[in-house]
Amino acid sequence: MLNQTEADSLSGILTFWKNLGEEDRRLILSAGSKSSYKQGEIILSRETECSGLVAVKSGQIRAFFELEDGREFTLYRLLSGDVCILTASCVIRNITFEVTLEVEKDCEVYFIPAPAWKALTEKNGKVGEFSMALIAERFSEVMWVIEQMLSKNMGQRIAAFLLEQAVLEGSQTLELTHDAIAKHLGTAREVISRSLKYLENDGILKRSRGQIHLIDMKRLREMDR
Amino acid sequence: MLNQTEADSLSGILTFWKNLGEEDRRLILSAGSKSSYKQGEIILSRETECSGLVAVKSGQIRAFFELEDGREFTLYRLLSGDVCILTASCVIRNITFEVTLEVEKDCEVYFIPAPAWKALTEKNGKVGEFSMALIAERFSEVMWVIEQMLSKNMGQRIAAFLLEQAVLEGSQTLELTHDAIAKHLGTAREVISRSLKYLENDGILKRSRGQIHLIDMKRLREMDR
Repeated sequence: MLNQTEADSLSGILTFWKNLGEEDRRLILSAGSKSSYKQGEIILSRETECSGLVAVKSGQIRAFFELEDGREFTLYRLLSGDVCILTASCVIRNITFEVTLEVEKDCEVYFIPAPAWKALTEKNGKVGEFSMALIAERFSEVMWVIEQMLSKNMGQRIAAFLLEQAVLEGSQTLELTHDAIAKHLGTAREVISRSLKYLENDGILKRSRGQIHLIDMKRLREMDR
Repeated sequence: MLNQTEADSLSGILTFWKNLGEEDRRLILSAGSKSSYKQGEIILSRETECSGLVAVKSGQIRAFFELEDGREFTLYRLLSGDVCILTASCVIRNITFEVTLEVEKDCEVYFIPAPAWKALTEKNGKVGEFSMALIAERFSEVMWVIEQMLSKNMGQRIAAFLLEQAVLEGSQTLELTHDAIAKHLGTAREVISRSLKYLENDGILKRSRGQIHLIDMKRLREMDR
């Protein structure tokens, strides 16, 4: 159940809100909920299949794909104002994979359960259009990830990832373990450690316990080209 | 312009046909066209952006992604009855990539131009649902491809590809150059040649000019596990 203040905030994220009738709005507000999560928490995992739509009010979330062997691979990030629809996969015919959401920065999210979303989609064409645009956006992001995987070697991919992190954090000092980078890039920790050691020997960055200090941003950017 | 026989055949592929009014059906039939293509021909390439929807009457088509350096990477195959909507990407908000279609076996396709498809989508909710299910299906296929890339080494990926080809061709003798396999798997020809040589030394297959003879299917399947 969401209150009026929460409704105002959610309506800014769901762009089709203005096309909804009073009844549909009530459906969302009565079925919806708001939750807070702490850094490191899992919002949705494979075990809780098809929970529903997640709309991010604040914070930062990583959407990842889990391989059978337990390895992880980051597909995209959700920031304030973003919506994840792949967590409502049962509402979308033919989606046969599931993503997991992990909180990277403490966040507040609105949550609309799958059955309510399904009912809404069937009633209102604008909701379907919204879902379609979301799916298409995620699909495009994943295609970009494939392009990166195919066209870059691991060193270049690490460089690109570190540059992206520096933008997200607004800092050249990144709180990142080797294991965390491995989970983002879908590889083994040893591969990351080896690459980071090369980059450190080249004077591009400096490693310390749980942190990476980016030193030569210019060369890091050149690597990413 | 499509005639009645063609309309009957196309209506079997477009599952929402029964939900269309007379006017919408006429729109498809007057804007649509049928074309034949020979093996090796490119139906749509990056240069002809957003041409429209392709529905396959017969034959086999490979949908691939082209990297900036010219390398190719197969995303999925289209067989009789399949529809490709990513070739109408401008109709779908947020799709920022383009696929190219290459004919693998002589084919006949129906073609619905993007403007007609767009008009139809806006008029009829069922068309939107159809598009959504198609996008979701392709997205799921691409996620499967990512999983393969991350969880298998090149030898295993080649084994999986050869087994898939054997099913598609209904034969253990495959007309395949090393270059063609490289284009499917998004790698360099040399990588494929080296792997095939190992597989030949192991007695799993035999190479000859432009052909690969699969000899030990059991061990090939074991490799793919």
